[in-house]
Amino acid sequence: MKVSDLGELGLISLLAEIVNSTRDDKAPSWKHLQVGIGDDAAAWECDGSTQLATVDALVENVHFTLETTPWYDLGWKALAVNLSDIAAMGGLPKYALVALSLPKDTEVEDVSFLYKGMAALAKQHGIAIIGGDTDSTPCVSVTVTVIGSTGENSRLLRRSEAKAGDRIAVTGELGGAAAGLRMLTGGLKLDSESATYLRNAFVRPVPRVAEGRVMLEKGVRAAIDISDGLVSDLRHICESSRVGAKVNIDLVPVHSAVKANFGKDALGLALSGGEDYELLFTGSADIIDKVRKAVSCPVTVIGEIMPDTSHRVTLIDSKGKPFDIDKSGWEHFKSSKNNQ
Amino acid sequence: MKVSDLGELGLISLLAEIVNSTRDDKAPSWKHLQVGIGDDAAAWECDGSTQLATVDALVENVHFTLETTPWYDLGWKALAVNLSDIAAMGGLPKYALVALSLPKDTEVEDVSFLYKGMAALAKQHGIAIIGGDTDSTPCVSVTVTVIGSTGENSRLLRRSEAKAGDRIAVTGELGGAAAGLRMLTGGLKLDSESATYLRNAFVRPVPRVAEGRVMLEKGVRAAIDISDGLVSDLRHICESSRVGAKVNIDLVPVHSAVKANFGKDALGLALSGGEDYELLFTGSADIIDKVRKAVSCPVTVIGEIMPDTSHRVTLIDSKGKPFDIDKSGWEHFKSSKNNQ
Repeated sequence: MKVSDLGELGLISLLAEIVNSTRDDKAPSWKHLQVGIGDDAAAWECDGSTQLATVDALVENVHFTLETTPWYDLGWKALAVNLSDIAAMGGLPKYALVALSLPKDTEVEDVSFLYKGMAALAKQHGIAIIGGDTDSTPCVSVTVTVIGSTGENSRLLRRSEAKAGDRIAVTGELGGAAAGLRMLTGGLKLDSESATYLRNAFVRPVPRVAEGRVMLEKGVRAAIDISDGLVSDLRHICESSRVGAKVNIDLVPVHSAVKANFGKDALGLALSGGEDYELLFTGSADIIDKVRKAVSCPVTVIGEIMPDTSHRVTLIDSKGKPFDIDKSGWEHFKSSKNNQ
Repeated sequence: MKVSDLGELGLISLLAEIVNSTRDDKAPSWKHLQVGIGDDAAAWECDGSTQLATVDALVENVHFTLETTPWYDLGWKALAVNLSDIAAMGGLPKYALVALSLPKDTEVEDVSFLYKGMAALAKQHGIAIIGGDTDSTPCVSVTVTVIGSTGENSRLLRRSEAKAGDRIAVTGELGGAAAGLRMLTGGLKLDSESATYLRNAFVRPVPRVAEGRVMLEKGVRAAIDISDGLVSDLRHICESSRVGAKVNIDLVPVHSAVKANFGKDALGLALSGGEDYELLFTGSADIIDKVRKAVSCPVTVIGEIMPDTSHRVTLIDSKGKPFDIDKSGWEHFKSSKNNQ
């Protein structure tokens, strides 16, 4: 069987099985492990605090092209997507390591821009870039590892902690990154305000680190960052938590620049476009209110966690009418995202 | 200017400069940082212990081909080269993250072998593989991050701590990995004992983790692992420590299978072949003796650290006659290693 037949999730679960067969509870590493493969980041206990680590690669012609993502932005984004994973655990990012693969004829100036983009975001978060590896390869790839911690607090935001009855909420507004990619690849000419917003949404995502910290502090227990798309990532929560979810599509906060420029596709971009790097989280109405009051970005309740042994995500409109995501262009967006 | 004109070391120092310009001593991450870019691994203080992290990628057609390195061995080696970096700091490896890039038509069985090879070595060291990332790309690459610690001891083995008068010593025997690669790429038919040893030396390096721990305990202060080659890696120590080195080539422990099968090339393979993943370290004769008595592998003194503001590595034979490494085939081995 080929990897493509098994699919990414099937592959990950096969690899997790091999890894878990080496589990040795007498080894201190295993004994202190809190979260292994299968959440936004791994977590382990270290002298009273919880340490976090995550790795994510951006590969040319898979995740980006240099036409849509200039070098500075590539550096920013390669770090941002990892910070987003740490944020989704409620952690503070601290250190980053960078494995860089570059063609031999890459301009030194371009690599400098890449590092300057990464360094600018690192500086905002007080992160030290502490090491790396450089190799010459036919195409560009940037693999970043981020190590963080939750400080004194050993609690974490988990994918697996959603409970039936929880409200489902999301930070910020959605659809911008996927709309930005469409604009860039399609050469669409939009008004300059929309164009700037959508471009930045795609190439300069802002990881919700402060918001993740607030969530942890206010008692949220379940969260994930939106990288694959709202519906896909909510499905990850449902599967990990063994629950279902009902989302009211009329409540989904689609960004105004997406609505204004992408008409009937706007909702699909928000539901399934992915790469918005907002946080999707669940909790009681009261806890979500507390989070809303403490953060500076919008927080919108979009649905509710349901008891459901099939772990389905159901979409309805305000009248209760079911909405079929497969007819909203989901596959199209997925494939345009993966083959950009 | 192209990256290839600048060279890897030039590129790393440029990137380190950009990173260091973001240094912020008020940020806890920077404040606790003990070792950043430029040693075998990075190190920072965390609640009384020193944490270590390193990342290394193996890229198809750059570091390996699937003809010379079967999947199981590739998994083993991708982890081993990172453990070797932790060993060279005197640390204990604890956690690993794996970013895997695979062509879509890769056989699932092959990826399983890769993970089984990695898991076998992880199990030997009580390491938990805690996360990763999978992507589909045209060629295979495996980027492993390893996180470790020195335990209660905040001392570290550094590249920068060699002092004039120190003896230079090396663990194990050299030349096996480069000779193994030559045998595999050249299809050489050797006696089965040599063939097995040389093959394993290249595809299944054994990281000297226990030996690095002993070095730290016995008072060694300077070490590096031999990945680029004995002379190149000794040069890294000399540059970091601002000293020179004199090596007696007649003392270099060339493995008998290399001597027996590669005649006049054997010494060149040991001096410059690289990838042996032995530890090269310096210290007083007394400290090196203590290390020798406490480890189970050979420890050989091969030379001495000298005061030298040009940070040269000088090779002599037992009669004191200078030996010119450039005539020993160094460039040839480097290029065969990089383009295998």
